[in-house]
Amino acid sequence: MSFSAQDEHFMRRAIALAWQGRFTTTPNPNVGCVLVKDDKVIGEGFHIQAGTPHAEIHALNAAAENAEGATAYVTLEPCSHTGRTGPCAGALIAAKVAKVVCAMQDPNPQVSGRGMAMLEAAGIDVEYGLLGAQAEALNMSFLKRMRTQRPFVTCKLAASIDGKTALANGQSKWITCSDARADVHSLRAQHCAIVSGADTVISDNAQLNVRLSEQQLADYPLAQVRQPVRVIIDSRYRLTPDLALMQTPGKIIIVRSRTAPALDKVQQWPNNVTELYVAGDNDGHVDLDALLTQLAADDINSLWLEGGATLAGAFAKQQLIDRYVVYLAPKLMGQGAKGLVNIGPFADMNDIEQMQFSDMRPIGEDVRLTLDKRAVE
Amino acid sequence: MSFSAQDEHFMRRAIALAWQGRFTTTPNPNVGCVLVKDDKVIGEGFHIQAGTPHAEIHALNAAAENAEGATAYVTLEPCSHTGRTGPCAGALIAAKVAKVVCAMQDPNPQVSGRGMAMLEAAGIDVEYGLLGAQAEALNMSFLKRMRTQRPFVTCKLAASIDGKTALANGQSKWITCSDARADVHSLRAQHCAIVSGADTVISDNAQLNVRLSEQQLADYPLAQVRQPVRVIIDSRYRLTPDLALMQTPGKIIIVRSRTAPALDKVQQWPNNVTELYVAGDNDGHVDLDALLTQLAADDINSLWLEGGATLAGAFAKQQLIDRYVVYLAPKLMGQGAKGLVNIGPFADMNDIEQMQFSDMRPIGEDVRLTLDKRAVE
Repeated sequence: MSFSAQDEHFMRRAIALAWQGRFTTTPNPNVGCVLVKDDKVIGEGFHIQAGTPHAEIHALNAAAENAEGATAYVTLEPCSHTGRTGPCAGALIAAKVAKVVCAMQDPNPQVSGRGMAMLEAAGIDVEYGLLGAQAEALNMSFLKRMRTQRPFVTCKLAASIDGKTALANGQSKWITCSDARADVHSLRAQHCAIVSGADTVISDNAQLNVRLSEQQLADYPLAQVRQPVRVIIDSRYRLTPDLALMQTPGKIIIVRSRTAPALDKVQQWPNNVTELYVAGDNDGHVDLDALLTQLAADDINSLWLEGGATLAGAFAKQQLIDRYVVYLAPKLMGQGAKGLVNIGPFADMNDIEQMQFSDMRPIGEDVRLTLDKRAVE
Repeated sequence: MSFSAQDEHFMRRAIALAWQGRFTTTPNPNVGCVLVKDDKVIGEGFHIQAGTPHAEIHALNAAAENAEGATAYVTLEPCSHTGRTGPCAGALIAAKVAKVVCAMQDPNPQVSGRGMAMLEAAGIDVEYGLLGAQAEALNMSFLKRMRTQRPFVTCKLAASIDGKTALANGQSKWITCSDARADVHSLRAQHCAIVSGADTVISDNAQLNVRLSEQQLADYPLAQVRQPVRVIIDSRYRLTPDLALMQTPGKIIIVRSRTAPALDKVQQWPNNVTELYVAGDNDGHVDLDALLTQLAADDINSLWLEGGATLAGAFAKQQLIDRYVVYLAPKLMGQGAKGLVNIGPFADMNDIEQMQFSDMRPIGEDVRLTLDKRAVE
């Protein structure tokens, strides 16, 4: 299929719209839609929140009967199934659009080509594959869950330029600048769940919720911030109800390997807290892949991993991390200071995973580097 | 003084010309000159190499008698003294230019305002301060030597994202990519001297010379690469004449603290090697500030420090490093791997020097971060 410069122009607009849902659409994907007739946009929209209308419906509502004969540019194949909302393919058919251009097929087994087949069966001209890579980037987390039944895992790290996170005596406030810490909240807000360990929660008395500045809230599409689920690994029963984390509103899952708690470890948790028991390894550590599978089954698209070097190392050793977001401060913390990720020691350079930088930018006085798994060549 | 947009345009051109001398002008500064008459460039030039004509002379030669009544844009105050070439202020007077605009005054005690005074005494209109910061950036090394009698010291580091330079077993080939290694040669080539330690020279059998690719040579203003002086610190008399370094042409200075060598340590060095004895501290280590003073007195504007974590740490501890150039590879080398700079341990975050990122860019698969001393606010 070949697409015109005009096709590309309207799909870029649909993709830009879709990004506006990035804080709130999960477990659904980010989707944007632009309806065009006689070279003019007659309606557009994006998906904001699960349970509310999809992008196509917003665009069709805006165009009303003018939609007849129009071309719809959609960043993802329109859905064919009735979930909490009716199927978008049906709505496009009812509105009598002439043509639908999709950026990509939806790998969701409930859709997966059926949306496009429905449209074609109704006599609508369907094309797909326009700006597919950009559409993939919109939904890395949703797509990973659909394709692998695991969430997309992003590990946040913050260190000095020599890769240190704390002095030998544990002092670590503040390595990175306030702009970097605000940026962390914006990225936390884009994830379904934050994963940390009991160590971090106890030693920092961390809340691990999202706290956005007024400026950040200006970009936020809802009045209320959707708080990510906080998933805390605590196989040694060290968490207690009095921690700041527990007292901060929002859903909390305490994860333990499948061993019964001793009676003296049984706690009375607030209503927002649930305990999740997953398989453990021989040492009683939580089986992290089993945890990921469970979380994906619970519609968690993405995890923001924010803990110490031990937790990061445990995920890294099993190659469960898809992306690292690394904040580096312009200082040298030197010898004796604590390292970034507890993996290795490695005996050979060839044993080390080579990743790739996919983004770099200044954040206040610091830099933020994004590393992804290396694309298969 | 106020400058027009046209003044700025021509000074930018003069600065761009000056940069072309960056590989070869030392110990002289990089200088560019543009001669303008009736809004047109009638001559331009830049300084290429000490002992050859200065920028102003190239521009005046190009303009010939047309220079009469012209305005000269010069990135640095024209010189007033007769060195290996005649004074440029005199040449501008002889050519009867009407006006001279300088980006900045020359702090060289042999000039330092005298060039401008000569021009003014001859009735030439003189202005200065146009794009002064950009002109400073052209000559950070020259200016530092003039102002402090020390060279500008840049420490090169290369590490994984967790700040490691070698595995526990010493394996370190190759952490960074080939593009990063080529970039190092381009930066080495812009320095007067490369400083390293006997450890690095022996364990890597390093040549520490400049090897430019064909592409890099296309930007090089001379037929032959000017090799930086190689300065190797070796207080324990471990260097030997058979090392690759010694057999690679170019001047080498072996630096030792002021202690007489044992007779069995006396070596027969090739002609390109000299031994320099500087003051030592109580432990017999070279007094690095004394070394810097000596090198500056020998017209060394800039040092490229490229060794191990111990050498970098020794300079860092005394705050002798002006700039770090850090290549980071997209990998985690993990525990047991060797650290970046041996400083600290620090007991308090406030004891750590806060620097600032002044540049960041991708170099092949790696990133290159430049950190400078924090500007005084």
